[in-house]
Amino acid sequence: MAEAVIHPIPPGTRDMLPDEMRELAALNERLHAVFAAAGYGEVRTPAIEYEDVLRRGDDRAAGASFRLFDGSGRVLALRSDTTIPIARLVASRYADAPMPLRLCYFDNAYRPAQPGRGQASEFMQAGLELVGSPAPGGDVEVIALVLDALDAAGLGRHRVGLGDGSLYRRLLASFGVPEGERPVLLDALSRRDLVGLATHVDGLSLSRTARDALVGLPALRGGPEILATDVEPVHAALAGLRACYEALDARGAGDRVILDLGLVRELGYYTGVVFEIYDPAVGFALGGGGRYDELLGRFGRPLPACGVALDVQRVHTAMLAEERLAARGTSE
Amino acid sequence: MAEAVIHPIPPGTRDMLPDEMRELAALNERLHAVFAAAGYGEVRTPAIEYEDVLRRGDDRAAGASFRLFDGSGRVLALRSDTTIPIARLVASRYADAPMPLRLCYFDNAYRPAQPGRGQASEFMQAGLELVGSPAPGGDVEVIALVLDALDAAGLGRHRVGLGDGSLYRRLLASFGVPEGERPVLLDALSRRDLVGLATHVDGLSLSRTARDALVGLPALRGGPEILATDVEPVHAALAGLRACYEALDARGAGDRVILDLGLVRELGYYTGVVFEIYDPAVGFALGGGGRYDELLGRFGRPLPACGVALDVQRVHTAMLAEERLAARGTSE
Repeated sequence: MAEAVIHPIPPGTRDMLPDEMRELAALNERLHAVFAAAGYGEVRTPAIEYEDVLRRGDDRAAGASFRLFDGSGRVLALRSDTTIPIARLVASRYADAPMPLRLCYFDNAYRPAQPGRGQASEFMQAGLELVGSPAPGGDVEVIALVLDALDAAGLGRHRVGLGDGSLYRRLLASFGVPEGERPVLLDALSRRDLVGLATHVDGLSLSRTARDALVGLPALRGGPEILATDVEPVHAALAGLRACYEALDARGAGDRVILDLGLVRELGYYTGVVFEIYDPAVGFALGGGGRYDELLGRFGRPLPACGVALDVQRVHTAMLAEERLAARGTSE
Repeated sequence: MAEAVIHPIPPGTRDMLPDEMRELAALNERLHAVFAAAGYGEVRTPAIEYEDVLRRGDDRAAGASFRLFDGSGRVLALRSDTTIPIARLVASRYADAPMPLRLCYFDNAYRPAQPGRGQASEFMQAGLELVGSPAPGGDVEVIALVLDALDAAGLGRHRVGLGDGSLYRRLLASFGVPEGERPVLLDALSRRDLVGLATHVDGLSLSRTARDALVGLPALRGGPEILATDVEPVHAALAGLRACYEALDARGAGDRVILDLGLVRELGYYTGVVFEIYDPAVGFALGGGGRYDELLGRFGRPLPACGVALDVQRVHTAMLAEERLAARGTSE
């Protein structure tokens, strides 16, 4: 028996052998078939971009990227998401295209992994971008399509958490929370640290109304009843969420939706609805997305847009976990 | 009419729109079907590797890579070829696998483009690696399979240029050409600069026999008749080429082969047969490969091996060029 000789690979990367590759290819094929049937054309952008072009889309996304040097002096970066490169692509190559424009992609994105956290630094994504279609219709199309695609892929228990990416920022602004304090609160929220959030809000000497809204609203998670809460500064955001929920419910997907007023996505370009895909069989999000009505404008083509990216390997893991749960259910 | 807003992308990279993506996907699918039917299982390695691991495979390959920094202090690189990562993979993950091992991949490789030369810095590759199968059988399997795969993809005029990667190095050594002079000669040869090669050889004050072999042998290109030339130091290499040619001829592929004693592949790890795929409809190689019997040993698993990588976009361009030529032929 020969002994394996292990040569290290960078943290967050993996080798994939034929059995796994076959399953991932089959999964991608099923997702692709649903996307294509809905009119989404596959595009591919380079893995390498100029860092300043990515930064035009989102400072935080560019800052979280691997940087490369090619000797020319201009800084390159590996794309850390595909939405920003597609915004660039739409501005450059689809100037006269009739809207809405439906694009999809199957490609890797890259982010340096923090050591010891088990994060991926290279991840296979399957994504959709719907450009030129405003809320709520565009959001509903994208969310319904990704739920359908996961059905077709063989997943059975997936749910979508639905929130609004502008909601908490609007609260912070309207209650006069100093600019310098906002990142700490948003950061606590993005980590779902509601206790830390409350402690920090309590230290800000705000009105009772402000305190209750800043701590109470993001804790609301559940069915459409939570939308009855009406807080003036976020009236429009709540009405938008209601419209999105109702349209999804009318398409029969209401029982898939978990409304979540504390949902904040990491990237700064979201302007309206944001969402994440979950599966109770696993403890991590399978992907997510949202509405980004200002991103295309930063590349010179002001158009509303909405998109989603699935982490294909996480979807695969969820499929295997569902199968294990089903097998256990049968054997009991 | 909206005006396109062009945001630059790095030299050697491209955006691909749905029509092209559909054709490339169909092409990859056909190649994949032929590889899979021959028992080649698809693997995927990370795009990012530790530079010193790549350097263990080939110093030149590692040196020609994009370097990355992730803040941890250890230098990372984007893979510039996939053969070295697969050698690493085989040593780590296939210690007890029965040989030969048949692996294939469909993935990108990256090399900084030299400005103004129209070179790609990101290229889609479709490749095969046959591990544990010695010459000439392994070489014949790989070459015949890649010719078949291109047939299946729809190409009709493709040829394979066949040489030996050790031949010129053996000549240089046996005629006592000083080590310091050899890189210049190999470089001229890899650029097919036979005039520059002759000028440089003439300056070396060698014997007439040495001079004739060093200048004359690499100019030999054609059918099996060129193998009649027998120069003692490369007797074994010529015999190897003859065996490979005869086996390909016996499989009906003889008319596809152009023997080429001046063929030198860029990477240093080739130890025997090397080859390139051409199509008369276009002026560039569609891919190439060869035998690398010492590479696996550098990763702790001394096994003979042979592989090939196709540049999928170049194959696609050749297909379109063949179609244009055929259409012109019909319309005349």
